[in-house]
Amino acid sequence: MLKSFGELKAKVLAAGQKKVIALASAADEASLEAIRDAQQALGVECLFIGDNDSIIAMAEKVGLDIKSDNIIHTNSHQQAAELAVGLVRDGKADVLMKGQLPTGTLLKAVVDKDRGIRTGGLMSHVAVLESPSYHKLMFITDGGMVTGPNLEQKQAILDNCVTFAAGLGYNMPKVAVLAAVETVNDKMPETVDAGRLAEMNRAGEIGGGIIEGPLSFDLAISAESAKIKGFTSQVAGDSDIFLAPDIATGNILSKALIYLGGAKMAGCVLGAAAPIILVSRGASAEEKMLSILLAMAV
Amino acid sequence: MLKSFGELKAKVLAAGQKKVIALASAADEASLEAIRDAQQALGVECLFIGDNDSIIAMAEKVGLDIKSDNIIHTNSHQQAAELAVGLVRDGKADVLMKGQLPTGTLLKAVVDKDRGIRTGGLMSHVAVLESPSYHKLMFITDGGMVTGPNLEQKQAILDNCVTFAAGLGYNMPKVAVLAAVETVNDKMPETVDAGRLAEMNRAGEIGGGIIEGPLSFDLAISAESAKIKGFTSQVAGDSDIFLAPDIATGNILSKALIYLGGAKMAGCVLGAAAPIILVSRGASAEEKMLSILLAMAV
Repeated sequence: MLKSFGELKAKVLAAGQKKVIALASAADEASLEAIRDAQQALGVECLFIGDNDSIIAMAEKVGLDIKSDNIIHTNSHQQAAELAVGLVRDGKADVLMKGQLPTGTLLKAVVDKDRGIRTGGLMSHVAVLESPSYHKLMFITDGGMVTGPNLEQKQAILDNCVTFAAGLGYNMPKVAVLAAVETVNDKMPETVDAGRLAEMNRAGEIGGGIIEGPLSFDLAISAESAKIKGFTSQVAGDSDIFLAPDIATGNILSKALIYLGGAKMAGCVLGAAAPIILVSRGASAEEKMLSILLAMAV
Repeated sequence: MLKSFGELKAKVLAAGQKKVIALASAADEASLEAIRDAQQALGVECLFIGDNDSIIAMAEKVGLDIKSDNIIHTNSHQQAAELAVGLVRDGKADVLMKGQLPTGTLLKAVVDKDRGIRTGGLMSHVAVLESPSYHKLMFITDGGMVTGPNLEQKQAILDNCVTFAAGLGYNMPKVAVLAAVETVNDKMPETVDAGRLAEMNRAGEIGGGIIEGPLSFDLAISAESAKIKGFTSQVAGDSDIFLAPDIATGNILSKALIYLGGAKMAGCVLGAAAPIILVSRGASAEEKMLSILLAMAV
């Protein structure tokens, strides 16, 4: 269990492993700022793929020192995506990061059958949040990739997240499968899926964590609420992973906590051969930097 | 537009109208506490339906003074529900409130064809939130009644909420139809509905407010995020009403803001002949009291 991004950072620094990021279409101000900060704070290395002159100009603007050996020139987004993915595939980079190119262009290179870095499973998004009102990091999934997951896809999303958490040192994360209520109700299909996932977990069909569901959000995070409602569970009030019923719920939940709840966020795409940093246009430099930290920690 | 519950309270006090609440199965500690506080702060009156002795005992416990004329004795939840609904139907009470009885029992009496208080339209829930990080009250709907609304039901939910807001003095509330993204995408049916609602609004088919959608949550509440994303809209960054794609999203959003975002909430069921106060078991006395305030304000 990790209490904060500060604890995560200490862990990364203690491990002392040098990680390399491949930044696709690197002439992107916010990305270069994040790389600059991550170099200083974490000693990360970066390979910059994109238009040579634009990268150098943008790097100068944000005060980032780039060795010319670390730039791989191309002026096509598609080629930048393919080259960056190739670096990860060939073991020359540990993390793939999206710069100034459309998300679809990067993902197309990622999922390419012959030259991509898919592992065969479903790719999903995790948002790791540090809320000033919760006692540890929250892993919210999936508010960014899989639009309307069915039961099997929810299992895959969960599996990606549990595996990811294991890489961060979580032995047995507590998983809340979120819904509006804590009872299975046929009129709310998400409660049926949630009940099924919890059942499969109890039967040993899904491992790696303790799964409880359906759980209302208050039960997932508040021990007091669980007490008032007479709900006894190892997960209630102490959840690590929050499985959202769909992309809208996961996305809105994360953004509510960030924009109105003072939470900090790091985001990562899971399920490929390496973590992929794919932050939204509205993301702050801090979010980009924390996302690099997260990807480095695995 | 209302900035806070404080402003709402001032409005209610200024109006000086005496409102009467019918409390079904009134021997409920938290409800009686809320009535006690609402009597002191707002001068509300209450009719208590339920077991006479239990009500008197519980009222003494919480320090609430009850005139014996205001108690209507019954020891059946079903009868308490029917009597309370009857008081509203006959104009003897302005607001219906759930005490210590199952929600289903109360709603059954509400929707009874002959003796209920349905008006024919869809009944829906609104959660009104005061977040310390947002500049005005947020109306989130529907996280409590309608499980998986289709387009027509979303329109009815919106209509209930706009009518309710009009009763609070909103001439032209700004409505954000929430989704994960701000573009219509067939893979996310909620974005299709959202786009359709906004279209119908522009075509004059839905009135009473300015509807924008789909909107991601950050665009709905943050003018800065709208600026970064180059999104121009009257609603973005200044939404009053937040239409959730489904009950899970609405419920989880409200609870995230309450439990981790320091927000205060009042809840109300709309679409019947009178507002219905139907707070959850986990609700604080403050939430119950604010819900009374909200119901009185209309």
